[in-house]
Amino acid sequence: MQWGDLTYLLAMAGTAAFAITGVLAVSPKGVDVFGAVVMGVITAIGGGTVRDLILDVPVFWAVDLTYVWVAIGASLVTFGASSLFTRRSIYSLMLYVDALGVALFGIQAADKVWGLAFALPLAPVILGIVTAIGGGLIRDVLAGRQTLLMKHEIYAVPVLLGTSFYVAVLRFFPEYRELGIFLCGTFVFTLRSAAIHWNLTMPDWLVLGPKND
Amino acid sequence: MQWGDLTYLLAMAGTAAFAITGVLAVSPKGVDVFGAVVMGVITAIGGGTVRDLILDVPVFWAVDLTYVWVAIGASLVTFGASSLFTRRSIYSLMLYVDALGVALFGIQAADKVWGLAFALPLAPVILGIVTAIGGGLIRDVLAGRQTLLMKHEIYAVPVLLGTSFYVAVLRFFPEYRELGIFLCGTFVFTLRSAAIHWNLTMPDWLVLGPKND
Amino acid sequence: MQWGDLTYLLAMAGTAAFAITGVLAVSPKGVDVFGAVVMGVITAIGGGTVRDLILDVPVFWAVDLTYVWVAIGASLVTFGASSLFTRRSIYSLMLYVDALGVALFGIQAADKVWGLAFALPLAPVILGIVTAIGGGLIRDVLAGRQTLLMKHEIYAVPVLLGTSFYVAVLRFFPEYRELGIFLCGTFVFTLRSAAIHWNLTMPDWLVLGPKND
Repeated sequence: MQWGDLTYLLAMAGTAAFAITGVLAVSPKGVDVFGAVVMGVITAIGGGTVRDLILDVPVFWAVDLTYVWVAIGASLVTFGASSLFTRRSIYSLMLYVDALGVALFGIQAADKVWGLAFALPLAPVILGIVTAIGGGLIRDVLAGRQTLLMKHEIYAVPVLLGTSFYVAVLRFFPEYRELGIFLCGTFVFTLRSAAIHWNLTMPDWLVLGPKND
Repeated sequence: MQWGDLTYLLAMAGTAAFAITGVLAVSPKGVDVFGAVVMGVITAIGGGTVRDLILDVPVFWAVDLTYVWVAIGASLVTFGASSLFTRRSIYSLMLYVDALGVALFGIQAADKVWGLAFALPLAPVILGIVTAIGGGLIRDVLAGRQTLLMKHEIYAVPVLLGTSFYVAVLRFFPEYRELGIFLCGTFVFTLRSAAIHWNLTMPDWLVLGPKND
Repeated sequence: MQWGDLTYLLAMAGTAAFAITGVLAVSPKGVDVFGAVVMGVITAIGGGTVRDLILDVPVFWAVDLTYVWVAIGASLVTFGASSLFTRRSIYSLMLYVDALGVALFGIQAADKVWGLAFALPLAPVILGIVTAIGGGLIRDVLAGRQTLLMKHEIYAVPVLLGTSFYVAVLRFFPEYRELGIFLCGTFVFTLRSAAIHWNLTMPDWLVLGPKND
């Protein structure tokens, strides 16, 4: 298997995980099968869509519809087998695959923006974050849920740090691009996994106004 | 009267109905005349705007401002004569004209996307749905209302089915395009009208989590 | 100092004020430093971003990242020194600088749209309003706050009037463009300042449904 094939496979796993966690996030409020698929698909491809609109390049899923098919399929399976996916072990697994998606999509996006030389050095970081969390934000807004921006979770901060490091790699050690992708992606995944595992949130001194209860 | 003229007239009726139902949807929460017009206009042209951004073509209302003028006019009339539009018979009529708009805009959008050969065969269906319900979603989010994605209404599913049939027509019987538009549009309108008339919602087995009360 | 320099300085002051009021708006709900910066930046550059997407021109902050740096810096300072910015006098000052931003960005946007001859004469007014209030709307939606569209505040109406006058100037007295920018901008600022100073809201006869309490 080639490096590119592995990345593609990981991207599809991440897409599926985004769709699955997207459907599970809204199901406690009651959602029909149509709404579930819309929510799953938006969670999976919403962030990258906003990124591509801002970059003014063709939206990635229009170029390769596999992303949408995988998101639809994963949403339908989640709808049909929700009792499976809400089982503690499976749900926990999904959180880590979601973390993989966050890491992969964030760094991939930063790489894409850098390749387009778009508004360097800030845009790769900003659009990396948009790609990683944008779909979840749109889903939460459409579902009437509190967005993660108000939850003090450690979800986007790993992407902020990882894409910043990656931009530094591309700026100062451009010959180590592949290694940079791997290391920065691993860094994001590890940090996010730690946050999942130990249920970490932002420390109180980094919170303005009411703290988490 | 030409076929094109009739379609245009229907599009304007649908635009007005979208704006009217848009204003009526937010008025129970209390809205001033400026907010009412903004909500009416967003309901009427929001979905098509998002579609055109994703397609990367000029937004339709910039090409023909009549859509915006009609939406502004209909919103102002609704604001000024709200007691008229909340009368049971008029409101009911508006729901059916709204259904007409849903049918027309959904199929027209699918046709536009197909004509651009954009991400076939999925995008005509996806963007048909976006066009039909996108404006209402944005309005509900801005008004702090529950969006229809969480309401188990039969609103978007007719568009999903109708645009899917229409894509099949274009794929397998391209010589019947006009007939396909007419039949699929009628199908969407009929199904949506039935849902309005009998107050149909998605059956419980197609709902995950809390059911409708 | 040149006219252009002054405008640029005012734009940066307005950007900072948007970011500051953006952070202060969400802080009562509790927000971490990452969320605060995201909210501040979105408030500051969200409206112009939506405008540029609709115009299909490069987003303004990608052309000049100073806007983003100023928004990030102002958000961080607000986060770190929130007790300063919530002091009555400083907060009040910020409201007026925010009004300056509203006036400047609204008229500048109308001017930009007119210069592109985009969907005249409506689009300069529509996109002037989008530029002035779009960022705040997105922030409120992401924070789960009631948007200003439902609050009967006199915030966007000055922009509506000011950009309309400005379009009339460009249409009938194109040789007075600079004077028009100055006068219409001053008009917006004055009207908005009056609304802040006397705490003005839309009169009840311009409100449909429940009035303000």
